[in-house]
Amino acid sequence: MNLKMLEREFEAVRARNLSLNLTRGKPSGAQVSLSDSLDGILEGDFICSDGMDARNYGGLRGIPECRNLGSYLTDYPAERVIAAGNSSLHLMYLVLETIVNAGLAGSSALRGSPCRAICPVPGYDRHFAATEYLGVEMICVDLNEDGPDMDQVEDLVKEDPTTSLLWCVPKHSNPTGCTYSDDVVERIAKLPLLRDDSPTSPFFVLWDNAYAAHDFSDKPVHLSSIHDCAVAAGTLDRIVAFASTSKITHAGAGVAFLASGDRVLNDLEARLSVMIIGFDKVNQLRHARFLPNRESLSEHMKKHAAIVRPLFEATETGLQERLGNTELATWTQPDGGYFVSLDVLPGLAKEVIALAGSAGLQLTAAGATYPYGKDPADANIRIAPTFASLEEVEAAISIVGMSVQLAAARR
Amino acid sequence: MNLKMLEREFEAVRARNLSLNLTRGKPSGAQVSLSDSLDGILEGDFICSDGMDARNYGGLRGIPECRNLGSYLTDYPAERVIAAGNSSLHLMYLVLETIVNAGLAGSSALRGSPCRAICPVPGYDRHFAATEYLGVEMICVDLNEDGPDMDQVEDLVKEDPTTSLLWCVPKHSNPTGCTYSDDVVERIAKLPLLRDDSPTSPFFVLWDNAYAAHDFSDKPVHLSSIHDCAVAAGTLDRIVAFASTSKITHAGAGVAFLASGDRVLNDLEARLSVMIIGFDKVNQLRHARFLPNRESLSEHMKKHAAIVRPLFEATETGLQERLGNTELATWTQPDGGYFVSLDVLPGLAKEVIALAGSAGLQLTAAGATYPYGKDPADANIRIAPTFASLEEVEAAISIVGMSVQLAAARR
Repeated sequence: MNLKMLEREFEAVRARNLSLNLTRGKPSGAQVSLSDSLDGILEGDFICSDGMDARNYGGLRGIPECRNLGSYLTDYPAERVIAAGNSSLHLMYLVLETIVNAGLAGSSALRGSPCRAICPVPGYDRHFAATEYLGVEMICVDLNEDGPDMDQVEDLVKEDPTTSLLWCVPKHSNPTGCTYSDDVVERIAKLPLLRDDSPTSPFFVLWDNAYAAHDFSDKPVHLSSIHDCAVAAGTLDRIVAFASTSKITHAGAGVAFLASGDRVLNDLEARLSVMIIGFDKVNQLRHARFLPNRESLSEHMKKHAAIVRPLFEATETGLQERLGNTELATWTQPDGGYFVSLDVLPGLAKEVIALAGSAGLQLTAAGATYPYGKDPADANIRIAPTFASLEEVEAAISIVGMSVQLAAARR
Repeated sequence: MNLKMLEREFEAVRARNLSLNLTRGKPSGAQVSLSDSLDGILEGDFICSDGMDARNYGGLRGIPECRNLGSYLTDYPAERVIAAGNSSLHLMYLVLETIVNAGLAGSSALRGSPCRAICPVPGYDRHFAATEYLGVEMICVDLNEDGPDMDQVEDLVKEDPTTSLLWCVPKHSNPTGCTYSDDVVERIAKLPLLRDDSPTSPFFVLWDNAYAAHDFSDKPVHLSSIHDCAVAAGTLDRIVAFASTSKITHAGAGVAFLASGDRVLNDLEARLSVMIIGFDKVNQLRHARFLPNRESLSEHMKKHAAIVRPLFEATETGLQERLGNTELATWTQPDGGYFVSLDVLPGLAKEVIALAGSAGLQLTAAGATYPYGKDPADANIRIAPTFASLEEVEAAISIVGMSVQLAAARR
C-alpha cells in the first residue's frame, strides 16, 4: 500500500471517532466474575485450620491454609511463605524499602551509598517507579526469550559492587511474555555467590512471579523452582519471591504473598510489626476455601484462559495481517500473562502511539516499559488486550498495524 | 486485712492454678459475630455507587459509599476522607514516615534534624513503637480527664521548634478512657499556629479517633469536631485524623480511614501510588452496605455496648470492692473504649503485675503505656476486660485487687 492509500484508510478510521484502549493490564468483567462466590463462601465459619478466629487480631504471617495457597503460586514450602494483604506491589515496596533504609537479613542499609538495580528491559513500569522513588539507580540489561541476558547480569554483579538488586518477572514476563529457562533460573539463584556478601555489598533478587498460574494452554509453561535452586546454592535469604491472586480472583481484592528464607521472613515480620497489627485474615480464609488445592487453582485458571486466549489470538492475527512478513515490526507470542510486546522500527514508537491516539486508540505511553520512562530506541510498545472485548481488540489491533505502517511510510 | 491474712488468701488463689488474661484490647467472639453477615452481603452486586467495579483495580481514595462511612467516624466530609485497607496503624505509620522521610503538605523531611513527638501519657504503645522506630524522640505530657495538659503542650510547641508532632486519642482514650473537652480540641486545632510554619519547623497533629463510636451508653459521649476547629483555625493540612472499623466489624479485617486537608491527601495519594495500586474495594463495599448510614452504625454500636458494658461494670465493682475507699489505687471509669487505667502506689506497678502473674493472671507489662516502655512512677497498669468472659473478669479483677493490697502491705 502506498502512503496516499494508507493516509486515506487512516482518515476513514479516524472519522469513526472510536474510543478504544489497550493500556489496561487488568482482568475483564468476565474474568473477575469467575470468583464472585468468594463473597459468602465462609457460610458463617470463620475459624482457621489452626483454630484461630479469622475475625480477630493476630498472626503476621497469615493463616496456614492461605500460606498453602501461596505455596502453590510461589513453589516455596508454606512455612517460608507470608500471606499478606491485597497488594504484592506493597510487599515489593516494603522489601525494597527495607533493603534501602534498614538492611535485610544481615545486609547494611544501602541508603547514603551509591546503589543500583539491574532491570531487564522491557519490564514493568511499577517496579521501575518504586526503585526510582527510593533513590536506587537503574541499569538496563536485555531481556531475551529465555530471560535476562545472564552474561550481562553476571558481569555487572561481579564487576560493579554498587549493583544490589535484580528485578525479575520470571514467567509470562511483563511485557514480553517470556518465561525464564532452567539455566537462567539456576544462574540467577547463584548471583549472590558472585559477591563476598559482606553486609555492605549484598545482592538481592526480587522475583515477582505475578503470572505464576496464568497460562493460556491447559499445559502450563514450565518454570524451574527458584526456591530449589536457591536452596542448592545456599542463597535463600538473598532471593525474595512474590505472588498474588489479583489476576486470579478479584483484582486489588485478593491476597498477596511473599516467600523467602528464614532471616528475611524474621526481619520483615519484625519490621511489619511496627506498621500493622496483621493482614486481613477473613479474606485470606475466603481465598483458601475458594482455592483449597492445586487442582482447584489449575481448574480455575483454565476458565481464565478460555476468556483471555481468544483476545491474544485476535491480537496475533491482527498483527500478522498488517505487519506479518514485513520489516516494520516484531512482536511476542506469549503463552500466558497479560501483554504482547511490540517492537517497531527504532525511533517510531512515540509516533505510532500518537497516531493510534489520534484514531481513538489509547496505548501505553512510549517508554513505559523502560526505567525512567526512556526507551533509548523508542521502539517498544506494550499491548494489553485483556480488558477489551474481542471486537474492540480486533478494531484496536487493526489501528495499531495501520499506525505502524503509516509511521514507517511517512518516514 | 493484715499481711498474714492477705498472704494466706493469695496463696489460696495461687493454688487454683488459674489462667486469666487482661492484656488483650480486642473484641470478643460475641462482638465480632455481630458482623458475620458481612460475608455474603454483596449478593453478587459488586458495582459501587459511582459505577466502578469493586472487583477490579483503581481508585486510591476508596469508593464513595465507604468514604461516607469514614465521614461518620471522623466527622470530616467524605471528600476529605480516604477509605483504605484493613489497618489504621498502617496509615499512621505511612503519615509519620512521610513526615519524617519526605515531608508532607509543604513541610521538609525531618530526618536528619532533631525531631520530637509530644506524647500524652498514659497512651497507646503502638503509637510509641512506631515513633521510636522512625527515630523520633518522644516527650511526655500529662493526660488529664479532659485531654492532654494543653499548657504543657502549648509551651512545648512555642518554645521547642524540634517538637513536630502531637499524638492524640481524643475519645475514650487508650488507656484512660477520657474524652477531650471542646476547649482542648479547639486549642489542639490551633497548635500549628504557634509556629511560623516554615517548611523546616512544621507542627502536625495525629488524631487517632480509634473509639469514635465505641460508647457504652445509648447517649454517645460528645467529642467536638476537630475538622470544624481546623477549618476555623486554617490548620486543616496540619491535622491528620484516623479511624477504623476494626473494633466495629471484624478486627483486622475491616476498613481504615484517613482524613485531612487537600494538600495532605494529594501528597499521600502520590506517595501511595508508588507503593500500591489500590486498597481492597470489595471489602470497602461490604462495609458500606453493612453500615449504610449513621443510624445503622449507631444501632450496631449499641449491640457492642450491650456485650462490653457488663465487663466494665464488673471491673469497676471488683476494683471498688477491694480498693474503694483506700489510698492504694485510683482508676478510671470509662464510658466507652476498651480499657481501664489503674494507678497504684508509685513504685508498685511492676510488683503488682508480677504478683498477679504468679496467681495466673496475665496483665499488660508495666510501662507499656509510656514511651520507651518506661513509666517513671512505675504506677500505671492497663486493664483490658473485653476479650474475657464475665466470670473471668470477676476472678481477674479480684486478683488485681488482691495483688495491689499485697504489694502495698509487703512494703
